[in-house]
Amino acid sequence: MTAVGKSVLRVPDDTLAHRLAMSASTVDGGCNTMAEIRSWLADRAEKQLHQVARIPFAELRSWRFDEDSGDLRHDSGKFFRIQGLRVQSDFGPVPSWTQPIINQPEIGILGIVVKEIGGVLHCLMQAKSEPGNVDGVQVSPTVQATRSNYLRVHEGGAVPYLDCFRDLGRHRVLADVLQSEQGAWFYHKRNRNMIVEVDEPVEAHEDFCWMTLGQLHLLLREENVVNMDARTVLSCMPAGFEAAAGGLTDEMVTAIALSCDPAFGGLHTPQETMSWLTSRESEQVVVTELTGLSDVPRWRRTDVDIHHDEHRFFRVVAVSVLANSREVGDWTQPLLEPCGTGLIVLLVKRVDGVLHALVNARAEPGYRGTVELAPTVQCTPANYGGITSEQWPPFLDLVLDGDPGRILFDTELSEEGGRFHNARNRYRIIEVAEDFPDGGRPEFRWLTLHQLTSFLGHSNYVNVQARTLIACLRGLR
Amino acid sequence: MTAVGKSVLRVPDDTLAHRLAMSASTVDGGCNTMAEIRSWLADRAEKQLHQVARIPFAELRSWRFDEDSGDLRHDSGKFFRIQGLRVQSDFGPVPSWTQPIINQPEIGILGIVVKEIGGVLHCLMQAKSEPGNVDGVQVSPTVQATRSNYLRVHEGGAVPYLDCFRDLGRHRVLADVLQSEQGAWFYHKRNRNMIVEVDEPVEAHEDFCWMTLGQLHLLLREENVVNMDARTVLSCMPAGFEAAAGGLTDEMVTAIALSCDPAFGGLHTPQETMSWLTSRESEQVVVTELTGLSDVPRWRRTDVDIHHDEHRFFRVVAVSVLANSREVGDWTQPLLEPCGTGLIVLLVKRVDGVLHALVNARAEPGYRGTVELAPTVQCTPANYGGITSEQWPPFLDLVLDGDPGRILFDTELSEEGGRFHNARNRYRIIEVAEDFPDGGRPEFRWLTLHQLTSFLGHSNYVNVQARTLIACLRGLR
Repeated sequence: MTAVGKSVLRVPDDTLAHRLAMSASTVDGGCNTMAEIRSWLADRAEKQLHQVARIPFAELRSWRFDEDSGDLRHDSGKFFRIQGLRVQSDFGPVPSWTQPIINQPEIGILGIVVKEIGGVLHCLMQAKSEPGNVDGVQVSPTVQATRSNYLRVHEGGAVPYLDCFRDLGRHRVLADVLQSEQGAWFYHKRNRNMIVEVDEPVEAHEDFCWMTLGQLHLLLREENVVNMDARTVLSCMPAGFEAAAGGLTDEMVTAIALSCDPAFGGLHTPQETMSWLTSRESEQVVVTELTGLSDVPRWRRTDVDIHHDEHRFFRVVAVSVLANSREVGDWTQPLLEPCGTGLIVLLVKRVDGVLHALVNARAEPGYRGTVELAPTVQCTPANYGGITSEQWPPFLDLVLDGDPGRILFDTELSEEGGRFHNARNRYRIIEVAEDFPDGGRPEFRWLTLHQLTSFLGHSNYVNVQARTLIACLRGLR
Repeated sequence: MTAVGKSVLRVPDDTLAHRLAMSASTVDGGCNTMAEIRSWLADRAEKQLHQVARIPFAELRSWRFDEDSGDLRHDSGKFFRIQGLRVQSDFGPVPSWTQPIINQPEIGILGIVVKEIGGVLHCLMQAKSEPGNVDGVQVSPTVQATRSNYLRVHEGGAVPYLDCFRDLGRHRVLADVLQSEQGAWFYHKRNRNMIVEVDEPVEAHEDFCWMTLGQLHLLLREENVVNMDARTVLSCMPAGFEAAAGGLTDEMVTAIALSCDPAFGGLHTPQETMSWLTSRESEQVVVTELTGLSDVPRWRRTDVDIHHDEHRFFRVVAVSVLANSREVGDWTQPLLEPCGTGLIVLLVKRVDGVLHALVNARAEPGYRGTVELAPTVQCTPANYGGITSEQWPPFLDLVLDGDPGRILFDTELSEEGGRFHNARNRYRIIEVAEDFPDGGRPEFRWLTLHQLTSFLGHSNYVNVQARTLIACLRGLR
């Protein structure tokens, strides 16, 4: 073998892990203090006028129910369309059903700009309100752009910082991967999750603020502060920053660090894990077919909503929005409103000192494939009223009734406010004992953080709920 | 950090690369000589009676054209269905078209059993004839099983060695990943590509033969000897065996070895490569819709075939088969018969001593995503008769007319004989100079073998034609 020497050949940035770790351990000493960040966020919340009101469907402007299909769609054919979906599955208690679903085939960009300031990596985060957000303004990625935006065929103003994600020759890409969103509510939705490091000067406009990973991780622990788009992008960050010192026990810091290092192994090798996921993808059958929205039995359309006849799952509603922070100052649109607060739990345990998380290869009808890795529990408990606990999803009874273990993370976070109205989920990470009875269920596996992070380097392996919890787990401190 | 010590935790087999390399360098000294392998194959070709005759559609048994849709389908609803596909694309010279396509939603298993015999890894290969095969019997994986077979709900005899792929707790999985097949001919087809190492005794039945990787690589250079299924599984083999000594120059042996080692880098980092592929997947638009087979304008159905009105692309035909090697001794079925021999070329070059291959992020209408990595050139030149060379696919003129470089591999290999009739492709690997003019086309990139191999650890990144050429490239000697 000859050494390559001075060469056009390029290798990955081997300083990145160290630089990410430094950013994650910096809370004081960044270019803004936490007090300044909180004050900026409060100020933006005050300045960004965003009045949202429920309206009857008849008051929607430029949206209408298609005469033939019953689909709810925009006159331009853009944005998204609410259709029907017919589902057949060989798994779970309900073998077939129909439901409304959001069909939004265009791929958008969710992007975070990162930059070294004073020798520490900072993320450029945006204070952004969305009509369906819980608490109005939330901490969002630098850019949330639709395909029409980013291909510059849009009609409104330019999206700030979009060039950082379009002119990649000048910058360093840390992550760029397509990821799914809620498979129960979106049909085949994908967004491009991007993290780009910029060397040249970048000014933070008034709706934007530089913060370290450590600061972002603190905000992530607060209720409804960091939005879904920021969480999913953050989950795609390359490894190296996990388990920053802070309130964690030394044992947990070590368990997370070992879990991120492939040399320490796991209960299953990477090949076995991939083989397990391939077998779930191959052997479960989910057959779906888009239909008209008028072709969903058991769903009723009234003047003000479309709801399930047992008032479970979700409603389709309409809102009017008055805003001062967008090109378009007022508009109306449909939103999907879940019934009840969701409960999303990741159980973790130490196995020979290495942290493992219990994930579920879960089928959802809107996925492009059949299954994606989901948290241990992902459900809305209210949907199970009147059903005996034998028919509950696995581990829900343990999480609801018992005292399964030590809570490491417990925060309410809301989902994409541009499509969902008040979509609240309680996200929990709970540490259980090494001998926790998992029942050897074939659709569950204990995986290390290294295995999960390496799946997150690719598309459509890890679902959006698990991505939130992995971002939270990697940001524990 | 504490060492883990004796533990339930498991790490990947770090002897595997060495053991694969030994198998790849062994031609003499395996449990069969090349002469014995050739003699076994000739004997099987003689013993496996397989008479195939073209018949009119009216003589198909249990297959019929659906009255409403015109689809060609089996009475049981099993096997596959030939439907229509409507395609719209923003890329390439033809913006929209319709075509017949094979819809086979079930996921099958293509699996190779490997085992150490006399200290050297051997692959258990099968001599198998398929009705559409060029030259009848070809070297095939240990198992080619449909989903009905492998879930044991089949009606015929048991598939030999299937248990090795179903009882994975007892064996070691080296590869297990879903891969696409021809996106121009199959709609969303996926097969499970598996390689499993077995420790316990395994007897080779008469249609099966143990051979080393080195022996298999020699057979791969012979025309129409190793079938498509064996090639695609082989391409998913973990890295470590490439560039076995043999007829290659020392420079090329070194260039391949460096190309397999991530430490030596490449023209693009792994993150840049993933970002490029994500941008192609995001920005190209291919919209497809399945239709009835009677709804494909420009395709004509006669008593004996369905053909394009210019007799280009392919024909759908029917055959009768008389065999003595299957549970079902005689049957009839449709096959897709391409018009003309394809030309599939991978250009490679050394950059600072590291081998790179020029791959194309190529859209095909039957892919589950939009693009997959394809060879530099993949086309049937006869389809371009009457079209000026300006409209030819990139690099076709260089490959057809010029003397682009040094030919490293040049063999005719045929595609899946269970679905395609005489589907011949000429596969070539050509080494070009480091300053080869690639025109900076955004849909092409020079990648290292390490990058390609790491994509092959996941589903749907590398198309079936590129998988054949990567198997051939990794097997150069």
